[in-house]
Amino acid sequence: MDAQDFNIVFVGAGNVATHLASACARKGCRIVQVYSRTEASAQTLAHGLGCPYTTDLSEVSPEADLYVVSVKDSALEEVVEALSRYGNPDALYVHTAGSMPMEVWRGKVSRCGVFYPMQSFSKQRAVDFSEVPFFVEADSQDGVSRLKKLAGLLGSKVYEASSEQRKYLHIAAVFASNFTNHMYAVCEHLLAAQGLPFGSMLPLIDETARKVHELSPVEAQTGPARRNDRNVIDRHLDMLKGEPELALIYDLLSQDIHAYESKKQQ
Amino acid sequence: MDAQDFNIVFVGAGNVATHLASACARKGCRIVQVYSRTEASAQTLAHGLGCPYTTDLSEVSPEADLYVVSVKDSALEEVVEALSRYGNPDALYVHTAGSMPMEVWRGKVSRCGVFYPMQSFSKQRAVDFSEVPFFVEADSQDGVSRLKKLAGLLGSKVYEASSEQRKYLHIAAVFASNFTNHMYAVCEHLLAAQGLPFGSMLPLIDETARKVHELSPVEAQTGPARRNDRNVIDRHLDMLKGEPELALIYDLLSQDIHAYESKKQQ
Repeated sequence: MDAQDFNIVFVGAGNVATHLASACARKGCRIVQVYSRTEASAQTLAHGLGCPYTTDLSEVSPEADLYVVSVKDSALEEVVEALSRYGNPDALYVHTAGSMPMEVWRGKVSRCGVFYPMQSFSKQRAVDFSEVPFFVEADSQDGVSRLKKLAGLLGSKVYEASSEQRKYLHIAAVFASNFTNHMYAVCEHLLAAQGLPFGSMLPLIDETARKVHELSPVEAQTGPARRNDRNVIDRHLDMLKGEPELALIYDLLSQDIHAYESKKQQ
Repeated sequence: MDAQDFNIVFVGAGNVATHLASACARKGCRIVQVYSRTEASAQTLAHGLGCPYTTDLSEVSPEADLYVVSVKDSALEEVVEALSRYGNPDALYVHTAGSMPMEVWRGKVSRCGVFYPMQSFSKQRAVDFSEVPFFVEADSQDGVSRLKKLAGLLGSKVYEASSEQRKYLHIAAVFASNFTNHMYAVCEHLLAAQGLPFGSMLPLIDETARKVHELSPVEAQTGPARRNDRNVIDRHLDMLKGEPELALIYDLLSQDIHAYESKKQQ
């Protein structure tokens, strides 16, 4: 099965759909059509890919053999319903949502699966798919093979994961990426108030990420919370008095770090 | 001023002292002596450096021209007191603590300063000091010059920062490093319960760190909290019910991400 054997409709034009569709097109897959309910988004993506677009689910093309759905979880049900009516009944249908089960397709389409790329996609930033692990699931062995083939074309590492496992992968990814990034955002906010450049933190941020390639995160931990250094912790809490939500986050995370440290020592 | 013009006593044998003393020795500084109240630590470090050690502050060598103190903040006052009695009265005295003011030295020694390396040090892991920013402060221009010279020998970027600025650097570093690392630890904990390898998260962790070299953290944010996707957030909170402290952390961080996002859009 080669790239040109994939005839794909992309449903959605957000960060995931944009990066995934562009990568599939670059690898030689045929992009049959894109759908977004927002005309500007649909148009921009379709223009970049050189394919038609629609903003009306009833006009989705029945010519594809693979439908890839990347929409807000809350919109997924409506999209599934529409595709079951207007899409190609023999095609494979997948969504890319970490947190949604494959079950959303059951009884609606005859062949279904999930194609979950575990990465943090931003529109402004190119994605190197050779670095993106894909977690795939399908309701048939043939479906699994096709999804593995597609991930392989993108140059990615590919794992099989059940819907149950994927739920935990997704919540783990929220901690490892969204919450981690928020720690960077708080850091920038604190430095900006003192006229200090966020850039001076990048070596520390990089080293913190590099370390866990060699050590487990619990072994890699340092700082006042790990040592339970109450002098430092109390001074920091005092400094954050003016921003009670930050003080609360600081306090909770310090307690939790200390709890992990105590567990380790048992 | 060359490396051999630095004659240094290191007080402390923890992660910071160990890495810093070893790097200074490699660059050709003369390590006069190390002190730790724990004999095994003092011995190990002194053996590595090929220098004498003591576990008794009253026997600290008066032969140094620079005393570098890296001890728990709670131990600093006692060390300062002892050094003021037994150290060389003409030497420069510095500590390496991000969260302690230079003032701890005032009235105790005639020349003082702070030499704060902003990095997360683990004993098990080599440190590339060319990647470590140093924030220095001294009570004289000559002191600042000497500390800048020493940081320069180590190959580091060096900034001047007041005690007030350094307090905020330190708390910002706690968020960017310790709290970030704890997000990794929670991630590992959640995956382990599902038999999933932490290693599959490393591409996501790396990309999350790389992104903020190009985008500000607030711009780089993605995920359910940024989109305020209540379906996903509520499902995740439900999954964390069995670990109420994790559910609380998830909830607070999601709210805070949403608050930053709302502020940005104003």
